[in-house]
Amino acid sequence: MDTMNDEYYMSLALDMAERAQGQTGINPVVGCVVVKDGAMIGLGTHLQRGTGHAEVHALNMAAGKARGSTAYVTLEPCSHYGKTPPCSQRLIDEGVTRVVVACEDPNPQVAGRGVQMLREQGIEVEVGLLRGRALRLNEKFIKYILTKQPFVTLKSASTLDGRIATRTGDSKWISNAEARKIVHTLRHRHQGIMVGVNTIIADNPSLTTRLEVPGLNPVRIVIDSTLRIPLEAAVVSDGLAPTVIVTTGAADPGTKALLQAAGVQVVVCGPGPRVDLKSAMTALGELEIGSILLEGGGTLNGAMLEAGLIDRVILFFAPKIVGGGAGEKGTFAFPGVELMRDAISLEGVEVEVLGDNVCISGTPVR
Amino acid sequence: MDTMNDEYYMSLALDMAERAQGQTGINPVVGCVVVKDGAMIGLGTHLQRGTGHAEVHALNMAAGKARGSTAYVTLEPCSHYGKTPPCSQRLIDEGVTRVVVACEDPNPQVAGRGVQMLREQGIEVEVGLLRGRALRLNEKFIKYILTKQPFVTLKSASTLDGRIATRTGDSKWISNAEARKIVHTLRHRHQGIMVGVNTIIADNPSLTTRLEVPGLNPVRIVIDSTLRIPLEAAVVSDGLAPTVIVTTGAADPGTKALLQAAGVQVVVCGPGPRVDLKSAMTALGELEIGSILLEGGGTLNGAMLEAGLIDRVILFFAPKIVGGGAGEKGTFAFPGVELMRDAISLEGVEVEVLGDNVCISGTPVR
Repeated sequence: MDTMNDEYYMSLALDMAERAQGQTGINPVVGCVVVKDGAMIGLGTHLQRGTGHAEVHALNMAAGKARGSTAYVTLEPCSHYGKTPPCSQRLIDEGVTRVVVACEDPNPQVAGRGVQMLREQGIEVEVGLLRGRALRLNEKFIKYILTKQPFVTLKSASTLDGRIATRTGDSKWISNAEARKIVHTLRHRHQGIMVGVNTIIADNPSLTTRLEVPGLNPVRIVIDSTLRIPLEAAVVSDGLAPTVIVTTGAADPGTKALLQAAGVQVVVCGPGPRVDLKSAMTALGELEIGSILLEGGGTLNGAMLEAGLIDRVILFFAPKIVGGGAGEKGTFAFPGVELMRDAISLEGVEVEVLGDNVCISGTPVR
Repeated sequence: MDTMNDEYYMSLALDMAERAQGQTGINPVVGCVVVKDGAMIGLGTHLQRGTGHAEVHALNMAAGKARGSTAYVTLEPCSHYGKTPPCSQRLIDEGVTRVVVACEDPNPQVAGRGVQMLREQGIEVEVGLLRGRALRLNEKFIKYILTKQPFVTLKSASTLDGRIATRTGDSKWISNAEARKIVHTLRHRHQGIMVGVNTIIADNPSLTTRLEVPGLNPVRIVIDSTLRIPLEAAVVSDGLAPTVIVTTGAADPGTKALLQAAGVQVVVCGPGPRVDLKSAMTALGELEIGSILLEGGGTLNGAMLEAGLIDRVILFFAPKIVGGGAGEKGTFAFPGVELMRDAISLEGVEVEVLGDNVCISGTPVR
């Protein structure tokens, strides 16, 4: 049983924020718990961009009884008028006397000003409780707010010999059911899902979120330098989620017009022959896609990794060995490094055992 | 704290046997605990082939006071005169009244006769306590006693993209220190260590056991179809352990004579051009090598796996990505299967997290 202390309430606030991942768009996930006289009087979490912040929901629940209370907030309360009024002012107005904050808001419009506002009104503020977990929860938001580029999670599933398909291209199925459920949860938690056009041509996937409970579908993003995508492809024709095709100046204008007529957004990044992936990330950021799950083949995975555009790598391993000599069926197809000490390594490695599958994840660094 | 019961004593007997792995040659590892009037009166473990069995050591320690005691033995007591008299007779002679056995001895010379001997003298015998752990401890012995072929453990360390070297061949180092210590413990626990001649030419390894405490060196086995091994190779010249070179009829007789003169045993398996790996296993079994740790490159690993000669696969993964297109730097280089459902899969998968490295092991099945 957990001991009652500040962490007891903050961890609940983080749990609420954690479950809201995927539904706040480019906004952060935030949870808030208001406690008074030894009991919780309000709980709140930010649910959707443009709607109330966590503190507002929690104080609404407290219904005017928050005077003298402590508020636990996973992210520094905002200090600016955005789509909603500043939360710091609301905490002051309600008479909250102590605010415990997990981490500062890196948003340049806040960045300490929220905490400062509270302190200027004599409110006791403590910052940093469970900061690591709070920062991790909002890593997508933090990257986007600071760079306007999407946070990219590379997900792949391979055999123990690092293959994502047999030598003939067969890949059904590598992972077990438990791993595949996590993949669909990851889809829900990202605003975009990205593949190369070869994946569309080979498998015609819908790239939607399919789970025991309904989830949100990410925007489908297809890297297709010459617009080889068939008009009958599910992502073009099924209407289940928006689709963005990233192409080059080398693509045929007539094909582009046909795709646009089919409701697909076409973005040109570079003159060709290959899509300029760095400018693609900028363009997708401009479309307010703040997070992308990359489910590419070896070539796209390798190119994105080499270009330094991957923020997190999540690899599922199934206990299978398939052999086959060709490197292009590997998880990462790129020219590669000369020396083992120059390998791209993962930091902050986490390992999760999923039945007979293993998930290894971390942050790539060169 | 553990509860005192039959398992309490049997698990100690198994712990003793477990630590003796590697020092009993083709013999099993066995532990024995003798308990009387609520206290242990004798402990024993089989230490070396040709010396006393576990029961004998334990009863010697009990010094004639075992009448009315219970003996816990990890393997069925033997019933035949081998290098030592039968242990079942000794248990009878000492007046032990109850014997708890973890698993039957599959040795055709025993195979239930030990238990039968005891029961015929009115001793209460229970078989099967912690059987799974006991069978696993003696998997090498069991394979060898039943087939006269060595139990082969394939060990490899790769990057997350399944590479055992960069595209230039650099491989120092992939694993972390913790993983490398386990590898040297594995060397101690196998009678032979096997590599291909290309590993000798590239790295000139000594293939000895190097740990914080001294360990036993396995017999070095080199697969070398045309005797390309240099006479200056450490395994030929350092005298740290015996070396067996497995070659073919295509090898030069003069080179063979030079190697033999240098103290190396040369075994011919097949006419060439490749070593016949199946007959190599038979030949090595005839040399009383009952267990082999295979630390091959991709080609030898792939060939042994395809030939169905691998009994356990132990793969270490380091959180690194090195790219490089060529399949021959992979853990397993073989033509491979066409369909994912035909993959060689691992059963009984075990996962161990070693800092930022992960060890995945299991039994390969097709």
